[in-house]
Amino acid sequence: MAQPIRFELLRRDGHSQARRGRLTTPHGVIETPVFMPVGTQATVKTMAPWELKEIGAGIILSNTYHLHLRPGEQLIDRAGGLHGFMNWDGAVLTDSGGFQVFSLADLRKITDDGVSFRSHLDGSSHSFTPESVMAIENALGADIIMAFDECPPYPATRAYVETSLRRTVDWAQRCKASHQRPEEQGLFGIVQGGEFLDLRKEAALRLIDLDFPGYAIGGLSVGEPKPLMYDILAYTTPWLPVDKPRYLMGVGSPDDLFEGVERGVDMFDCVLPTRIARNGTVLTSEGKRVMKNARYSDDFLPLDPDCDCRVCKTFSRAYIRHLIKADEVLGIRLTSYHNVYFMLDLMKRIRQSIEADRFLGYKQEFYERYGYNEKNAGEEV
Amino acid sequence: MAQPIRFELLRRDGHSQARRGRLTTPHGVIETPVFMPVGTQATVKTMAPWELKEIGAGIILSNTYHLHLRPGEQLIDRAGGLHGFMNWDGAVLTDSGGFQVFSLADLRKITDDGVSFRSHLDGSSHSFTPESVMAIENALGADIIMAFDECPPYPATRAYVETSLRRTVDWAQRCKASHQRPEEQGLFGIVQGGEFLDLRKEAALRLIDLDFPGYAIGGLSVGEPKPLMYDILAYTTPWLPVDKPRYLMGVGSPDDLFEGVERGVDMFDCVLPTRIARNGTVLTSEGKRVMKNARYSDDFLPLDPDCDCRVCKTFSRAYIRHLIKADEVLGIRLTSYHNVYFMLDLMKRIRQSIEADRFLGYKQEFYERYGYNEKNAGEEV
Repeated sequence: MAQPIRFELLRRDGHSQARRGRLTTPHGVIETPVFMPVGTQATVKTMAPWELKEIGAGIILSNTYHLHLRPGEQLIDRAGGLHGFMNWDGAVLTDSGGFQVFSLADLRKITDDGVSFRSHLDGSSHSFTPESVMAIENALGADIIMAFDECPPYPATRAYVETSLRRTVDWAQRCKASHQRPEEQGLFGIVQGGEFLDLRKEAALRLIDLDFPGYAIGGLSVGEPKPLMYDILAYTTPWLPVDKPRYLMGVGSPDDLFEGVERGVDMFDCVLPTRIARNGTVLTSEGKRVMKNARYSDDFLPLDPDCDCRVCKTFSRAYIRHLIKADEVLGIRLTSYHNVYFMLDLMKRIRQSIEADRFLGYKQEFYERYGYNEKNAGEEV
Repeated sequence: MAQPIRFELLRRDGHSQARRGRLTTPHGVIETPVFMPVGTQATVKTMAPWELKEIGAGIILSNTYHLHLRPGEQLIDRAGGLHGFMNWDGAVLTDSGGFQVFSLADLRKITDDGVSFRSHLDGSSHSFTPESVMAIENALGADIIMAFDECPPYPATRAYVETSLRRTVDWAQRCKASHQRPEEQGLFGIVQGGEFLDLRKEAALRLIDLDFPGYAIGGLSVGEPKPLMYDILAYTTPWLPVDKPRYLMGVGSPDDLFEGVERGVDMFDCVLPTRIARNGTVLTSEGKRVMKNARYSDDFLPLDPDCDCRVCKTFSRAYIRHLIKADEVLGIRLTSYHNVYFMLDLMKRIRQSIEADRFLGYKQEFYERYGYNEKNAGEEV
C-alpha cells in the first residue's frame, strides 16, 4: 500500500537530539524541524493563503472540533476537502478534537466508547468516538490526521492517567481500524501519559506496536511548569522510532521551539504568533514588543530591523501602533503576518544551524539577544 | 506658480453631461470619472496599500478630523505625510473635517471664526478654523485638500443656509489665503447651498471668483431624498467651469455613480463598499448579496461570476459565508477587497462607455441587471 506520509532523516546533531529531516506529503515536501501556523476555522487568522505561501509556510494545522461544529465536514468534503475549501495547495494537518473536547470541562462526559459534549457555540449535543472522528477527518481531507485521544489535565492522579492512557491506546487502535483513506492521509498516534515517565514510555511502546507513520507527544503545555515539560519531552522522544517524525502538539513560543528541537522534536504548532498579534504584540529578534506602548508612537523603525518580511520592509512601528490603537484591521493583519513570518524564519535558521553543526551555539546567540536567560528560563518572555 | 493639480477634459458625452477627463496630481495621473476609496484613519479598512494598487486605485481619501485627533498631523508630517505614513505612492485627497464636526450635533459650537467641538474619542476640546484646518491639511500632505466649509443639515431653513453659505464662502477665501503649500497641494472649494437652487448658484459663482483648481459639491446625501439630490446636482454642475474637475463628496452607491456622472460629476468617494463589506454584504453585477444568508451556505460559485477580482477568481461564496459567520477577519478582508474592486471596475466601465459614446445605454443595461428600476429608483437596493 502506498504511504501518503514519508519521513527522511537527513542529519542528526552531534551535541543534542536535534534532527534535520524531510517530510513528504501529498501536498508538498516539508523541511523539518517545522513550525505549522494554526488555521482553526479553515483560515490562519487574518491571513490569505497566498500570504502563507509567500512567507514559506508549507503545512498548516486546522481544528476538527471547530470545523465539525461549523461549517461541518460534509460541506468541506463537497468543496474538495480543506485544500479546496480554503484554496490552500500546501499540506494540512488536522487535530482530532481531543484537546478541545477535554477542555470543555463542564460540558463533556467521557466513557470508554467516546466523549459526549455540548458545543461552545450553541450548547447543542454532540459526541466524538474514535470512529466518528476518523470519519470527520477523512471528510476534511488533511494530509496528516491525528488519532482521537484523551488529554488528561495537569495535575492529574496516576490512577486517572493510567485509565486515560489505556483508553487513548485503545482509541488509537480503533482509529487505525476505521481510517478509510490510508493511501491519501497519514494517521499519527499521540503519546499521552501525563507527568508519569513510565506511562509515557508505555504509551510510546504500545503505539509503536500499532505502526503509525508519525507520533505526536500530547498533553504537554497544559499548565505544568516548563522545566517539567522539557524533562518529560527529553525522556519520551528517545522511545520513539528514529525514522518517524515527532510532533509536539500545541507548542510553542520561540524558546519552546529551541528546547523541543534540542530534545528531538520535528514538528510544532501554536496559536501564539497570531493570538498575541491580535493584541498588538510582536515577536522580534530582541524579544517581544507591545506595540500599544507609547514608546512606539513616533518610532519610525520597522517592527524588527533584522526581519526581511514584507511588513518590516514597508511599515513603521509608529504606523502599526496607530492602526492597532485605532482598532484598524490592517493593524492586526500586519502584526499577524510578521509574527507568523518570524516563527517560520526562526525555524529556517534553526534548520540551517543544524546543517552547519552549530545548533546549540545558535540557540545561545538567539537567547542572549531575545532576552531569555537563566533567570527567566521557562517563563513567558 | 506651478499648479500641482491639472485637469484635462478629454471627451463630453453627446447625450448627457457625462465627461471623460484626466487629473494630473503629484502622485500620478487619474482617469475620470473616478471613484476614490475612503481611508478614514490612514488605511482603507482591511486593505494593504499593495492591494489598492493591484485593483487599480489611483487616489484615496483620508479624513482630516479623524487624523487630527489620532495620531495627530505632526506625527504624520514627520513620517513624510500621509504617503510616507501609509506607504502609499498613489494620490491622496483629504477632506476638511467640516462634515465630521457638523455631524457632532450636540458636541460643537459654530461662530464666524470657526467651530469648537469635543472629540468623539475622549471628549477633549478642539477647535477648527479655516487657518487651523489648512495647517493640518498642509501637514498631512495630500495632493488635493479641501477648504473648510459648513455643511448644513437637511432640512434647514433658508435663513440658516444663507448664513451658513456666507460663512462657507468667507472661510474658502481664508483657506486660500492661509494655504502654505500651493505648489504641492491643490485646494478645492466646496459648493454648499442646501436645497436652495439660487444659493447653490451663488455659491458656485462666488467660489469661481476665488479660482480654485477644482470644485466640490457638498451638503448632499445628508438625508434628502435621492431625486432631490439629483435635481440639485443637475442644476449646480452647469455653473461650474467646464475645464475644472467636479467632486461630489461622500457619494455614493452604484446608482449614485451613474446619476452623478450623467450630471457632469468627475470624482466620487464613499465608505459604502467597505462599510457594507464588514457586515458581509457584497456588490455584484446582479445586485447586493447578503453573504450571511443561508442560501449561500453550500454555494460554490464566486461572489460575482462576472467579476475578475482575485477574490472571485479564488474563493467560493460558501467559504466566504463561513468566514463571515465565524467572525474571521479574512472574511471581511475578502468582501472589502471585492467591493472596492467592484466600484473601481464599475467606474472603469463607465469611462469606457463614455469613450464608446454609449454611456446611457450602459447605464440602462447595468440598472436592469443590478435590479434598479423605476419602482425602486432612489431607494437603497
